[in-house]
Amino acid sequence: MANPVLPSSGALSPLGLDAVRLSPGFWGDRVALNHEVTIAHCQEWMEREGWIGNFRGDRPRRGREFSDSEIYKLLEAMAWAGHPELPALAETVARAQEGDGYLNTRWTGSRYTDLEWGHELYCYGHLIQAGVARLRNHGEDRLTEVAVRAADHVCRRFMDGTQTCGHPEIEMALVELYRATGTERYLELARRLVERRGLPALGEIHLGRAYFQDDVRLRQAQSFRGHAVRALYLACGAVDVAVETGDEELLKSIETQWERTVARRTHLTGGMGSRHADEAFGEDYELPPDRAYSETCAGIASIMLSHRLLLATGDARYADLAERTLYNVLATALALDGRSFFYANPLAVRVPAEPVIGVVNHSAGGGLRSPWFDVSCCPSNIARTLASVAAYVATGSGDGVQIHQFTPGEIRHDGLALRVETGYPWSGEVRVRVLEGGGGRISLRVPAWASGATLRYEAAGAAPDGGRDGAGAGGSEAVRRVEPGYAVVERDWRPGDELRLELPMAPRWTYPDRRIDALRGCAAVERGPLVYCAESVGDEPPLTGMAALPSSPPAEHSSDGTVELEVEAVLGTPDSDAWPYSSKAGGWPYQPQREPGTGTGTALRLVPYHRWGNRGPATMRVWLPVADRTVADETVAEKTVAEKTVAERPSAG
Amino acid sequence: MANPVLPSSGALSPLGLDAVRLSPGFWGDRVALNHEVTIAHCQEWMEREGWIGNFRGDRPRRGREFSDSEIYKLLEAMAWAGHPELPALAETVARAQEGDGYLNTRWTGSRYTDLEWGHELYCYGHLIQAGVARLRNHGEDRLTEVAVRAADHVCRRFMDGTQTCGHPEIEMALVELYRATGTERYLELARRLVERRGLPALGEIHLGRAYFQDDVRLRQAQSFRGHAVRALYLACGAVDVAVETGDEELLKSIETQWERTVARRTHLTGGMGSRHADEAFGEDYELPPDRAYSETCAGIASIMLSHRLLLATGDARYADLAERTLYNVLATALALDGRSFFYANPLAVRVPAEPVIGVVNHSAGGGLRSPWFDVSCCPSNIARTLASVAAYVATGSGDGVQIHQFTPGEIRHDGLALRVETGYPWSGEVRVRVLEGGGGRISLRVPAWASGATLRYEAAGAAPDGGRDGAGAGGSEAVRRVEPGYAVVERDWRPGDELRLELPMAPRWTYPDRRIDALRGCAAVERGPLVYCAESVGDEPPLTGMAALPSSPPAEHSSDGTVELEVEAVLGTPDSDAWPYSSKAGGWPYQPQREPGTGTGTALRLVPYHRWGNRGPATMRVWLPVADRTVADETVAEKTVAEKTVAERPSAG
Repeated sequence: MANPVLPSSGALSPLGLDAVRLSPGFWGDRVALNHEVTIAHCQEWMEREGWIGNFRGDRPRRGREFSDSEIYKLLEAMAWAGHPELPALAETVARAQEGDGYLNTRWTGSRYTDLEWGHELYCYGHLIQAGVARLRNHGEDRLTEVAVRAADHVCRRFMDGTQTCGHPEIEMALVELYRATGTERYLELARRLVERRGLPALGEIHLGRAYFQDDVRLRQAQSFRGHAVRALYLACGAVDVAVETGDEELLKSIETQWERTVARRTHLTGGMGSRHADEAFGEDYELPPDRAYSETCAGIASIMLSHRLLLATGDARYADLAERTLYNVLATALALDGRSFFYANPLAVRVPAEPVIGVVNHSAGGGLRSPWFDVSCCPSNIARTLASVAAYVATGSGDGVQIHQFTPGEIRHDGLALRVETGYPWSGEVRVRVLEGGGGRISLRVPAWASGATLRYEAAGAAPDGGRDGAGAGGSEAVRRVEPGYAVVERDWRPGDELRLELPMAPRWTYPDRRIDALRGCAAVERGPLVYCAESVGDEPPLTGMAALPSSPPAEHSSDGTVELEVEAVLGTPDSDAWPYSSKAGGWPYQPQREPGTGTGTALRLVPYHRWGNRGPATMRVWLPVADRTVADETVAEKTVAEKTVAERPSAG
Repeated sequence: MANPVLPSSGALSPLGLDAVRLSPGFWGDRVALNHEVTIAHCQEWMEREGWIGNFRGDRPRRGREFSDSEIYKLLEAMAWAGHPELPALAETVARAQEGDGYLNTRWTGSRYTDLEWGHELYCYGHLIQAGVARLRNHGEDRLTEVAVRAADHVCRRFMDGTQTCGHPEIEMALVELYRATGTERYLELARRLVERRGLPALGEIHLGRAYFQDDVRLRQAQSFRGHAVRALYLACGAVDVAVETGDEELLKSIETQWERTVARRTHLTGGMGSRHADEAFGEDYELPPDRAYSETCAGIASIMLSHRLLLATGDARYADLAERTLYNVLATALALDGRSFFYANPLAVRVPAEPVIGVVNHSAGGGLRSPWFDVSCCPSNIARTLASVAAYVATGSGDGVQIHQFTPGEIRHDGLALRVETGYPWSGEVRVRVLEGGGGRISLRVPAWASGATLRYEAAGAAPDGGRDGAGAGGSEAVRRVEPGYAVVERDWRPGDELRLELPMAPRWTYPDRRIDALRGCAAVERGPLVYCAESVGDEPPLTGMAALPSSPPAEHSSDGTVELEVEAVLGTPDSDAWPYSSKAGGWPYQPQREPGTGTGTALRLVPYHRWGNRGPATMRVWLPVADRTVADETVAEKTVAEKTVAERPSAG
């Protein structure tokens, strides 16, 4: 079966990518864009930068020490997509493999001399994942052969001893190769690599051992920490090992760490990582919107981890976080044209980028995605994730099918065939129509934010409102409230039966835990699974010194196939004149009185966060300062009077 | 004359270090500690780490590429302190100098092959400053000879062409050597090095050219930017060049950049730098308390720059910022025992350090200063600054003397001898008594925060209150209010005459400009020039989730020769139970209602920020969240009732 993650046990089972076919819609469109544009874009840049040439022996070698892994992630994307360029690229890779299976264009001749920073096992991990993808979606070929030879080489070299790689990744790859081939030594090596960390297994580095999770045994850690991508990839591998070896203590430990990390070290978007200096999680409650790192790859790694925990436990909270991260990190990182990318995904940007387009970047910022990076882990990671995103949509179990993510498409499991029709995430209506019937349960996830959701079963051929009394034609049921978690309906399904889930899509104000210092006095707006933001491009009113009035509910405007929102706000003057003390003491910004609020009341447009930065260099805010009551009173008071006058007129007429 | 900065023109003239003699007091004590402890401590660690051995040719060479500069800063400290170890250490250095004046233990054999990162000219800068210190405080010797030969070598190598060093520092050193020797080529090279930056003069680096101020011509920049120490050292050199060459445009440009940086990129403590990733200034209003970098060396560089601008212009705002930075960065960075140091000086710390003491650190944090660092620029910089700190106390001019910093000691200028007696910064009373008389003005700085300050002149032999009507014995004057800036008294001074400045020392609440996102909803407490903070050591109540009630003025308590403060506060429960939503949705910290405030009203002790971290690993906050009115009401209401009952009883009795 073709799916990136195929555990041999767990609460839920993945469906093959062929069992979940996406139609045009939010994710179906992005999958198509990826197949048509992004995969080729990545290949072009890897050629241009010489990273593919490295495999041909071109000298001097180009790119960073881990650039081989980009080709492997691209191969994985091609494998899931069934891309015609795969065999030729795989052949180029295969020719660089040494006789004993060793394969690395950077370290050939000085193998394993820098395990802390060399990334050799990390690169193998991605090679093996590409091989597994090919094996599952096509069958044995040159690529799978190369991957197996590499895995066997690693087993020979690293099965005994205390060493591991500075960058986790190979752990989950080895477990998946075990699942795909049944060869137990791959699982055993993965288990050992997970257990070695924290003994410690690596040398001292100036960033400290927590950077690569070698400070403490994984099962004893309290929270994910250090380099976010490393931490999350390691946790994925640990879940895989735990599931295959029945290590419930390890699984429970990762669940606990996930829970604490989500409660204390995760941005509203689902993004993880607060520090630029070491691309790391910060401390608990260190969640600055402007300096949020929220690396695209960490978002992807978090989706991979939540999915694994969902499969193991069936707990909806994991699908909730995956949804949040899919819509607000993954979808944000890719430009609408599929050809440029964010590396970091901050929640506030104060200074727009210089408009330099089409060149390699150190880290795209200021609202301008970059076509490529010197450390370009994110583009190929997006490509492989979109190529397999259908894996996150639904699962099966012995007694039915579970739909976790809502996007148009068809789902088949155990004789049952369902068509999902929805305008989600713009609309909250999700229709699940039975195409081919059978027995069992259909479970629909009700997200944690969807308080007040309703579900209605309509039997094939029933009148649209025939079931309102619970006993309509064909056994249709009344609309019933469903609580966050899973709404489950068990029937003997017949073609034409339909479930209609209505999720409440009113925009909502969201407030942060007060221990998050960087968000004090702010609120954000969400609608459905989407986080919204204010964006300012070019001459649009600047966002410096603005404040929002959350007393009024945001208004909705459809625009360009999306929904934009409007909130009441006060715009401050952007320059120093807004600050009454600026003329004193050389503009010293710390003064003995609270700054009196000033500004002009206005309507502030909010766009979905994943859409920002598609109109050119921009400034942006997800978290909007909340106006002081003293500021708000006047404006609000005026508004209220005006609205009341309007509202009362009809009743008086 | 012995002073680190001796411009040939300007509004004010420095006094020799022998003309300002500090007595026991805040700074006098620290100067003594430096002479007795810190200088020797630095030398011991430089031996232990092998950085002095590098000059003896010990192999392998140890330390970072710029470690030579630490020995030079130590030599400068020794030169100002008249330390007996100087000649031997200077001899060790001298023996490593090559025939043509080249001197660097790292790059010998591969000279100037990496100007971006090599630090060769940077190291010369510190060598030359050590040489100038020796020349001025002692006269020519082996050290001054080495410095001059190095400077001549640099002039030959870099006078023509377009190159410069990735780390500015040599510019101000060369100007000072010109001032000390009269050799004009040193000034000319300094001028050229300042002008070259931004043409650009250096290669591309992944941190971007703004990192080392090579993105734009200095005189066209709007603000200090990039690596904070580099930016501030360069600005120092530019002021020196501008003053000596009469380049008013350049001077004005630095003044404008200083003003904008102070208004938008400076922490309450005077600290500069908000980013760990590149030790850099952030963007305007990017001033996170927890991730404030505020490197000790950047604080020192800022003091050096403000002092230069004070000398050039006579504007009190420069002395104001120098005072703030002296008390809240320099004094903070050094432990009370003189043997350990902070590298970064954040304004909030959430997690206490692991108590590992006495080893080299990457960057001291969590309330535990470190005895040494792998990049150990700060300790020797503190040593040289304390050894010459008297330079910042007072200046002279043709018509009198100006006292900028208040600390006990004696000041001599132009026949006038003054004794300053004060308990500042604990007490606001500053007495300036004339020891030897003469004509002219005495100017006393009135800090910007000291609104309501008063000054009184009391003639020799007058009764303490004889002058209250303005016509008392000996011409004593009435107490008069003086405004921030300089209070100036011009008289024919006689021995025994006294000026008594009273600065208002009531603790005060301070609020941030609302554009500083990271400080929204917070207030800090200051008293005199000191910033205060809450600190929690060991079992003391944690600072997570606390909020302060600024409606009440802080209470004062004398403790251990200092003044501590107490404010009303509400302490939150530190763990996740404090957040009512924690049990829902896996503890997701973003929820649809504002968190209702909870907690117990209590008194919160505040200590001077420069004293924090002297009791062991600690958490700390300068900026205190301000309690919501809804939180505060109950507690405050109860208090008010209770206090009223107490207050009313006596009047009823």
